[in-house]
Amino acid sequence: MGSQPKLRIVVDAMGGDHAPANEVSGAVQALRAAQNAFEIILVGREESILTELRKHSVEGLSYSVVNAKDVITIEDSPTAALKQKRDSSLGVGMRLHQEGKADAFVSAGNTGAVLSASTLILGRVRGVSRPTIGTPFPSEKGVCLLLDAGTNVDCRPQHLYEFGVMGSIYFSKMFHKDKPTVALLNVGEERTKGNELVLEARKLFEASTLNFIGNVEGRDILKSTADVVVCDGFVGNIVLKFGESVPGFLKSRLTGVARRGLLKKLLIGMAKSSLKAALSDMDPNEHGGVPVLGVNGVSIIGHGSSTPHGIKNMILKAAEVAKIQLNKHIEAALALVPDISGASRISKAV
Amino acid sequence: MGSQPKLRIVVDAMGGDHAPANEVSGAVQALRAAQNAFEIILVGREESILTELRKHSVEGLSYSVVNAKDVITIEDSPTAALKQKRDSSLGVGMRLHQEGKADAFVSAGNTGAVLSASTLILGRVRGVSRPTIGTPFPSEKGVCLLLDAGTNVDCRPQHLYEFGVMGSIYFSKMFHKDKPTVALLNVGEERTKGNELVLEARKLFEASTLNFIGNVEGRDILKSTADVVVCDGFVGNIVLKFGESVPGFLKSRLTGVARRGLLKKLLIGMAKSSLKAALSDMDPNEHGGVPVLGVNGVSIIGHGSSTPHGIKNMILKAAEVAKIQLNKHIEAALALVPDISGASRISKAV
Repeated sequence: MGSQPKLRIVVDAMGGDHAPANEVSGAVQALRAAQNAFEIILVGREESILTELRKHSVEGLSYSVVNAKDVITIEDSPTAALKQKRDSSLGVGMRLHQEGKADAFVSAGNTGAVLSASTLILGRVRGVSRPTIGTPFPSEKGVCLLLDAGTNVDCRPQHLYEFGVMGSIYFSKMFHKDKPTVALLNVGEERTKGNELVLEARKLFEASTLNFIGNVEGRDILKSTADVVVCDGFVGNIVLKFGESVPGFLKSRLTGVARRGLLKKLLIGMAKSSLKAALSDMDPNEHGGVPVLGVNGVSIIGHGSSTPHGIKNMILKAAEVAKIQLNKHIEAALALVPDISGASRISKAV
Repeated sequence: MGSQPKLRIVVDAMGGDHAPANEVSGAVQALRAAQNAFEIILVGREESILTELRKHSVEGLSYSVVNAKDVITIEDSPTAALKQKRDSSLGVGMRLHQEGKADAFVSAGNTGAVLSASTLILGRVRGVSRPTIGTPFPSEKGVCLLLDAGTNVDCRPQHLYEFGVMGSIYFSKMFHKDKPTVALLNVGEERTKGNELVLEARKLFEASTLNFIGNVEGRDILKSTADVVVCDGFVGNIVLKFGESVPGFLKSRLTGVARRGLLKKLLIGMAKSSLKAALSDMDPNEHGGVPVLGVNGVSIIGHGSSTPHGIKNMILKAAEVAKIQLNKHIEAALALVPDISGASRISKAV
C-alpha cells in the first residue's frame, strides 16, 4: 500500500445553528484527534472564522480558510438560496469539492439546501435516479439503517430499490458486514401486505442480488430484524422524527411521575441518567451525520444543533466515507441489476 | 331524561389469544364494575364459555350466552374466513348487532377480520368512503389520536379528510373537548411540504369547518401539538408499531447498561419501574381498544393479547361509545361539507 495524498475536507463553517463557533471548534478537535491525518478547508466569512480560530491554539494544525461572503440560513428555500446567494459557504465549499480541490464536504446547515447543492453541483452517480440519505437507528443488537429518511417524499418502486442497493453498500462498508440484510418497511410481514408502492417494489428486491429478507414492520426497526430498512422519504422522515422525540417525551413523563409523588425525585433523576446512558447512541452528535448517497462525491449532512463534538464526528465520518469509495460500488451494483425491464414497467404503472 | 333501555353488548368470546378465558373473566369484571348497567351477550362455543363461567361467581350478573361453533383465528385471511366460517363467533355476534339485538360489539380477535365484518355486516355510515380506526398515543398534555392506524394503506385526499372529520368527532365526544385541533402528519410544517397525497388533502382540510391547524411532524405526536393527527394507514401503522416497540427497546437497553456495569442493577430496576409508571397509559389494556369509525354500529377492536382487565375496559369503552351516538354526528358533519367539487376532482387526479 503506497502512501496516499492527504485527504482534504471542506467544512461549511457557516452551516449550523452555532456557526462558525462550533464548526471552528469542531474542526480543531478533529485535526487533533486525527493527528493532522487530513487537511481541513474552512469555508465562510473569513473574518468571523479567523475570530473563532483565535480562541483556539491552532499551531501546527493542517487547515486553511476560504472566504465566502453569503450565508444560507435555515429559513432559506433550498433551491432559491443556491441561485440567489452565489457566494454562499455551501455553494463555494461544494464547488471546491466538485472541482477536485477537496475530497469531501461537511455541513450542519439547511438540510434541504445541502441536499440540493450535493445533487446539483456534484451530480448523480451513474444509475442513481434519486440521491438519498439514510439515518442510523439504534437497535437491540447494533444499528439499523433506515432510508430514505426524508429526501424523496414521493417515490416509485425503482427508487426504493436503488435506496436498498445504496443502503446495503453503505452498511457493508461502514459496519464491515458482508451482505447485510435488507428489508422493506411495511404494515405486515406477509407478501400480500402493503400499499401499491411497496407491493411493486418487492418484486424488484426479490429479483435482485441483495440479501433481501422480505417485509419488516415498524416494531422491527429497534429490534435488529434487518440491517437496512427501506421506505419512501415521507414514511422515513416521520418515523425518524417520531423516534427523535421519544427521549424528550420520556423525560417529560418521568418529571410528571415525580410531581405526582409516586416516586421520589431522586429516583427519577437516576432513571433519567440510566436512560441517557442507554440511549447515548441516539444522540446525533455521536453518530457524526449522514452521507448523501448517490452523488458524485462525499457530502455529509449533520444536525443544525451540532455541538463542536458533533462537528468533529462529522469530519471524522467524512474522512471514513471518503476512504471506502462508496460510489464505485454503487455504480457497479446498479449496473449489474438484471431486472430493469420489470422495473420500468412498474414505474409507469404507479 | 327518561330512563333508557339497558345497553346490550356482544362480546366475541373466542376472539383473543387467551379466549374464552380472558373474555369471560373480563365480562364478569365489567358487569361488576358497571353494576349491571348493561347486559353482556357472550358469543362463541357455548360449552367452553360455560366451563369458564363456572370458574367465576356470576350470580345476579346480567349476561347471556349465544352459541357459535366456528372460530376465526389470527392465521385466517379476514375476508375468506368470514365467508367460509359462517357460524363464527365474530360473524354471529356482529349479526346480532346488525339485527338490532345488541347495541355494541367487542372483539380482541383477528383485527382484519373484525374490520371486514364491521364494514360488510354493519355497512358504512352515509358519506363515509372508508371506515377507519384511530389509535390514542400518550402525549405530553394528554392524548393524541392518530388515524388511520392501518386500515387503509392506499388513500386518496378525500379519505384523509373523512378520517379528520371522524377523528375530530370521536375526540370531542370521548375527551369532552369542543373543536379539537386537527392536523395532517407531514414532513414539515410549511404549506409547500409533503407528498402529493398530503398536499392535495390539505386543500380539503383548509376548506372545511374542522379546527385545522396545518401540518405537524413525527415529533409532534408525543408533544400534544394537535389533538387529532391524520395520515394514511400505511404511515399510521408504521408509527404505531414503532411506538409500541419503544418500551421493550428501552428495557433491553437498560439491561445492556446494567450488564456493562455502568450502573448498578438496582438502579436499573428503579429506572425500569419509573418508566413503567411513566408509560402506563401506553398499555393497550388500559385504553380499552379502539372503535371502528364510520360503520353503522359500535364495533370495538382490542389487542389479541388483552388481559381480563383489558377486555373489561373494552366493554366499558363500548358502553361509552354506544351512548355518544358518534354516527349521527359523523353523518351530519360529512353531509355539511361544502367543498366536495374540489374533493372529487382531486380524487381523480391522484
